[in-house]
Amino acid sequence: MVESHALLEEAARLAEAARELQEAAAILISRTRNEEQSLRQRAVALESDLRRLQLSLDSTVRKKGENATGVGVDPKIAEKVDEELCRARCVINDGDVASLLLSKTHGRFLKMFLGPVNVRATRKEVQLKVKEEYNSYRDRTAFLFLLFPSTLLLLRSWVWDGCLPALPVQLYQVWLLYLYTTLVLRENILRVNGSDIRPWWICHHYCAMLMALISLTWEIKQQPDCAYKQRGVQLFLMWAMMQGVAMLLQNRYQRQRLYTRIALGKAKRMDVVWGETAGVEGQLWLLCPILFILQGFEAYVGLLQLRTAFVGVICEWQVIVCGILLVLMAIGNFANTMQTLTAKSRFKAKMKRTRSKQDFDSGSSTN
Amino acid sequence: MVESHALLEEAARLAEAARELQEAAAILISRTRNEEQSLRQRAVALESDLRRLQLSLDSTVRKKGENATGVGVDPKIAEKVDEELCRARCVINDGDVASLLLSKTHGRFLKMFLGPVNVRATRKEVQLKVKEEYNSYRDRTAFLFLLFPSTLLLLRSWVWDGCLPALPVQLYQVWLLYLYTTLVLRENILRVNGSDIRPWWICHHYCAMLMALISLTWEIKQQPDCAYKQRGVQLFLMWAMMQGVAMLLQNRYQRQRLYTRIALGKAKRMDVVWGETAGVEGQLWLLCPILFILQGFEAYVGLLQLRTAFVGVICEWQVIVCGILLVLMAIGNFANTMQTLTAKSRFKAKMKRTRSKQDFDSGSSTN
Repeated sequence: MVESHALLEEAARLAEAARELQEAAAILISRTRNEEQSLRQRAVALESDLRRLQLSLDSTVRKKGENATGVGVDPKIAEKVDEELCRARCVINDGDVASLLLSKTHGRFLKMFLGPVNVRATRKEVQLKVKEEYNSYRDRTAFLFLLFPSTLLLLRSWVWDGCLPALPVQLYQVWLLYLYTTLVLRENILRVNGSDIRPWWICHHYCAMLMALISLTWEIKQQPDCAYKQRGVQLFLMWAMMQGVAMLLQNRYQRQRLYTRIALGKAKRMDVVWGETAGVEGQLWLLCPILFILQGFEAYVGLLQLRTAFVGVICEWQVIVCGILLVLMAIGNFANTMQTLTAKSRFKAKMKRTRSKQDFDSGSSTN
Repeated sequence: MVESHALLEEAARLAEAARELQEAAAILISRTRNEEQSLRQRAVALESDLRRLQLSLDSTVRKKGENATGVGVDPKIAEKVDEELCRARCVINDGDVASLLLSKTHGRFLKMFLGPVNVRATRKEVQLKVKEEYNSYRDRTAFLFLLFPSTLLLLRSWVWDGCLPALPVQLYQVWLLYLYTTLVLRENILRVNGSDIRPWWICHHYCAMLMALISLTWEIKQQPDCAYKQRGVQLFLMWAMMQGVAMLLQNRYQRQRLYTRIALGKAKRMDVVWGETAGVEGQLWLLCPILFILQGFEAYVGLLQLRTAFVGVICEWQVIVCGILLVLMAIGNFANTMQTLTAKSRFKAKMKRTRSKQDFDSGSSTN
């Protein structure tokens, strides 16, 4: 009986400890929420001050431009003010304050798939981990991306006598659909976490996802006359192979960028962007021509698909839609690569100017 | 010139304010993390104490059972200890402490689709919102679920002369694949957020997702002899209609449960479970026979599919796999419904006992 009373006392003690712990947790959570709220208010007020000052700076500079009588700001001082504002914005958007600000909207796609759940990580380390995992995911899949369609095409001519069987092709198409869906989900999550991933890049993956889905509904016709009837599927596989090559190249380039970033330390955002452009200049000029060739090839495959649909016997809607999608993706990719190149060179020129100015002004920027 | 110096001063002031804010945010984040860490350690220690005491209680009770000489614990006291332990566990698992404990593992499926991102909401309100949104999502889709296949089947016999065209069916199958994928994603997210959703329920949706995917690769044969060749597709649509009916009924039942829960207030977990069972007792006894009939019909459709594949001319692998999946789902659903029913009645009996005990012991439970 002594034993049982000891047990009861111990149990009561533990229940009391649990209640105390619960109270401490509730206090911590509500206090943290209040403190976060007050910091958030300060951040919002500061952001609006920054916007206001930027506006008044812009209007003063413009006034001076219209009325060149010397009234208004000294251009050197204007540039200094601009710099200070830029620095303040950087501190807010890249530092710990950013995690307290209300997150960006999640976008329709994530809401459609996941509902209203929050996928924004509050800690910077976690955000970086998400980014790194995305990169390594792309690395891991890039090889499969090249391997699967080329294996199918090789087996077709060596083993299957020019006639693809339905099941392996469909399994591959399911994998493709899964891959593009996960890529698009992960990219949307990255964007919510503050990555400046290009909108076109995500859009391109939406198109590819749609193509994989359509290809699944595509009937793979058998003998007789296989080579002729399977022309559309064959072109699709060729496009996929080419995508694999593009993916491998881009991964190589992006990994290089990440190494440069790590080597430079996680300093300010601007430094990181300089480093990105500086470190892999040579790589980019090698990557671009290859990308252009691949884009040309993509458009060519798309046009071939359309010709097959309109001239040949295979007038399935799947072939037509895939053809149109391929041509659109090729045009979009080309436009996007051009835009990146011009933006990079413009940014580099500006940075050179600012850098030489900073060397000149160093020491006097805080007062 | 006065104006420009004022601008510069203002900009410097704002940059300083941004730095101060950044510092305050960094301090808050690191302090919160430390305090959370110490609470987490206390919680982990308390959990291991609870486990230890439970073990020693169990062994004492068992000892007494083997050796009925009166050594050991009084059964009444043992039950009281059990209650105290249960209460302490409830406080830890349902209160604010739960949000501090390391989250459950995310499971393979979420990792496959989303990568390493955290989808666990720390605040109870957000968790409840996720749950409510999931329920309303199911409500919204349940009608479409019934509408789409029945429209297709009606149009088939009234407009299309017994011959389904490929495109509408494929569009419907794409919708089905999207729907099941999102349901499975949301259910996994719910589980991470502490919902006690049944594993079989998620497993059932994995099967349905697989079926939708397989049905997409399924060639929809045209004339001549449509009615005969499209037998598999037709059976698939019938299964889908039946799923729609099951979904509508289950939603109705679950919404009722939620209303009861709200009416009872978000008290302790145990109260909620009592309320759940008590409030909709009648509903459940109406729901069950209908569910059993639907499960029987599901198995029947699956067997018909298998017969079509083995006896008729349509021996595509898709028909066979879908048939097997349907039979498996029917068996699993039946086993799961039976399990729920027995668990509910056992739980209710236990609760009745505990409740009358509590009325008896009231006031003396904390010391």
